[in-house]
Amino acid sequence: MAREAGVSRGTVSRVLNGGHNVSPTALAAVNAAIRRTGYVVNRHARSLITGRSDSVGFLLTEPQERFFEDPNFSVLLRGCTQALAAHDIPLLLMIAGNEAERRRITRYITGGHVDGVLLVSSHSGNPMAERLAKAQIPVVACGEPLGLGGQIAYVGADERGGARAMVRHLAAGGRRRIATITGPLDTPGGVQRLAGYREELAAAGLPADEALIAESDYSRAGGEAAMTALLRRAPDLDAVFVASDLMAQGALVALEHAGRSVPHDVAVGGFDDSPAALATRPPLTTIRQPFDRISTEMVRLLLARIAGDDPSAVILPTELVRRESS
Amino acid sequence: MAREAGVSRGTVSRVLNGGHNVSPTALAAVNAAIRRTGYVVNRHARSLITGRSDSVGFLLTEPQERFFEDPNFSVLLRGCTQALAAHDIPLLLMIAGNEAERRRITRYITGGHVDGVLLVSSHSGNPMAERLAKAQIPVVACGEPLGLGGQIAYVGADERGGARAMVRHLAAGGRRRIATITGPLDTPGGVQRLAGYREELAAAGLPADEALIAESDYSRAGGEAAMTALLRRAPDLDAVFVASDLMAQGALVALEHAGRSVPHDVAVGGFDDSPAALATRPPLTTIRQPFDRISTEMVRLLLARIAGDDPSAVILPTELVRRESS
Repeated sequence: MAREAGVSRGTVSRVLNGGHNVSPTALAAVNAAIRRTGYVVNRHARSLITGRSDSVGFLLTEPQERFFEDPNFSVLLRGCTQALAAHDIPLLLMIAGNEAERRRITRYITGGHVDGVLLVSSHSGNPMAERLAKAQIPVVACGEPLGLGGQIAYVGADERGGARAMVRHLAAGGRRRIATITGPLDTPGGVQRLAGYREELAAAGLPADEALIAESDYSRAGGEAAMTALLRRAPDLDAVFVASDLMAQGALVALEHAGRSVPHDVAVGGFDDSPAALATRPPLTTIRQPFDRISTEMVRLLLARIAGDDPSAVILPTELVRRESS
Repeated sequence: MAREAGVSRGTVSRVLNGGHNVSPTALAAVNAAIRRTGYVVNRHARSLITGRSDSVGFLLTEPQERFFEDPNFSVLLRGCTQALAAHDIPLLLMIAGNEAERRRITRYITGGHVDGVLLVSSHSGNPMAERLAKAQIPVVACGEPLGLGGQIAYVGADERGGARAMVRHLAAGGRRRIATITGPLDTPGGVQRLAGYREELAAAGLPADEALIAESDYSRAGGEAAMTALLRRAPDLDAVFVASDLMAQGALVALEHAGRSVPHDVAVGGFDDSPAALATRPPLTTIRQPFDRISTEMVRLLLARIAGDDPSAVILPTELVRRESS
């Protein structure tokens, strides 16, 4: 190619890598040579030699709307982009919210166009984690992939410990009828935060009452609907632990409509410490997930997986953040 | 590979394409054969033969925050995803908001990992469009790429005609001191909407006054700052044409802070008819951009470019949508 174009191999390489620091004359010569020889078909040559694409996918297995609604995703995306930038590795976003999209994206990934996948928000019912594991694609999940223990590396926060800290905080404030709005019970956050809630109620000597538990879907609208249902079923509730800040935003709307003042009548605690927690009135007491460290660790584990390491797991501590809602 | 694994070629193909409709036994046999033969290195074989990745990139050359703030991007993304789904082509999102990201993403694209690029929100000062054109990557831009006339296919709305329709509407309502907040003047929307504003003022016999023109950046905060500056420079203004709905949201905040009632004291017109136009109080009179058709046409032109067609341009009509802000 360099001979065909009458330029150095370095120049050809720079043209193929985007064309910076190449004179217009050299660029034209290389492009003409590419057209004459059909060299473009061999773009994959480098990847064929290394077996690498030198890129990583950020795969969201949720409908696109959720990506824009929930600020956690953009925080994670920014953190992962920055952590990969330190290795000069580009990040590709992939959204697979339905089965047809999952099929297409799986085909793309197993076609060798990314070296590994950062998998975000995968329900255990979601077939993507399992498919990628079967196809031997290096994957690191955000949160424990339920039902795939040991097969997939993951980074998670201490969900159960965080939930316990919140319920302990609400009980310490004198609340006795503490309700909870859970995430979907096929997600690790849904299951583990509910488990922590139950454990801490028992530890505090408060009776368990299924009327105080409502499952929801991590969306704002879902949180509002779940809070409305809880108020109907258990009008005497005096606190609610909501398993995400976005759902807590919705719960606050429902409490306002019902004429309950926060925190006087009902104390509200969220989970995440996402930007949503500061946007509420009153600002939300919540459990901080260490998203920066989660992103950094996800990238670290993925690069290790790509280099051949076995799957491992990292669990990071959470922290109670007190604001005015409790 | 099929012989090595003792299964049919169709089974191998299904495993390589994600592993659906494959029995666990056959899957294990193929995966074992892949490990024995190191076949994985040859994943690129199919792409080598066709020279295609059978995928398309959606490239946003803006910082990540803008992607989440401006609802136009998610509307375009959804439309492009759907139009590509009809062709069973996956879409990869790429965000290149700074020079290092642009370099990495250019390297990825020119590495043959996507067949073409849907380029969104490229300022003319942005080197991405030019680099991709130089590297002979099929590109379709959203809006005319300034300074690259004829080299890059694009789909745009009738920016100038839309701006004229809005100013005509404001003048017809008796407004005589009509200001404008423009987009960045290195974007087609910034330049063309300002040109339409000037033309229609002249056509209506209203004097041009540079004090009535403020350049901004398509963000909500930018719109608020520009409106504040306009009110200081031209306190007698009675209408403002804002070149995006998101900036108009900000302008409404500034007008409220200044104690001007909308539309009584100041009529406000936006541009886009994005979800932001319905979220304002009062709901925003605006110019509808046909985002659905823009997405569909971008995908149609890109697939034609990938198939070898020359760059072409499509300009779609805009439409005045009257609501309560004017």
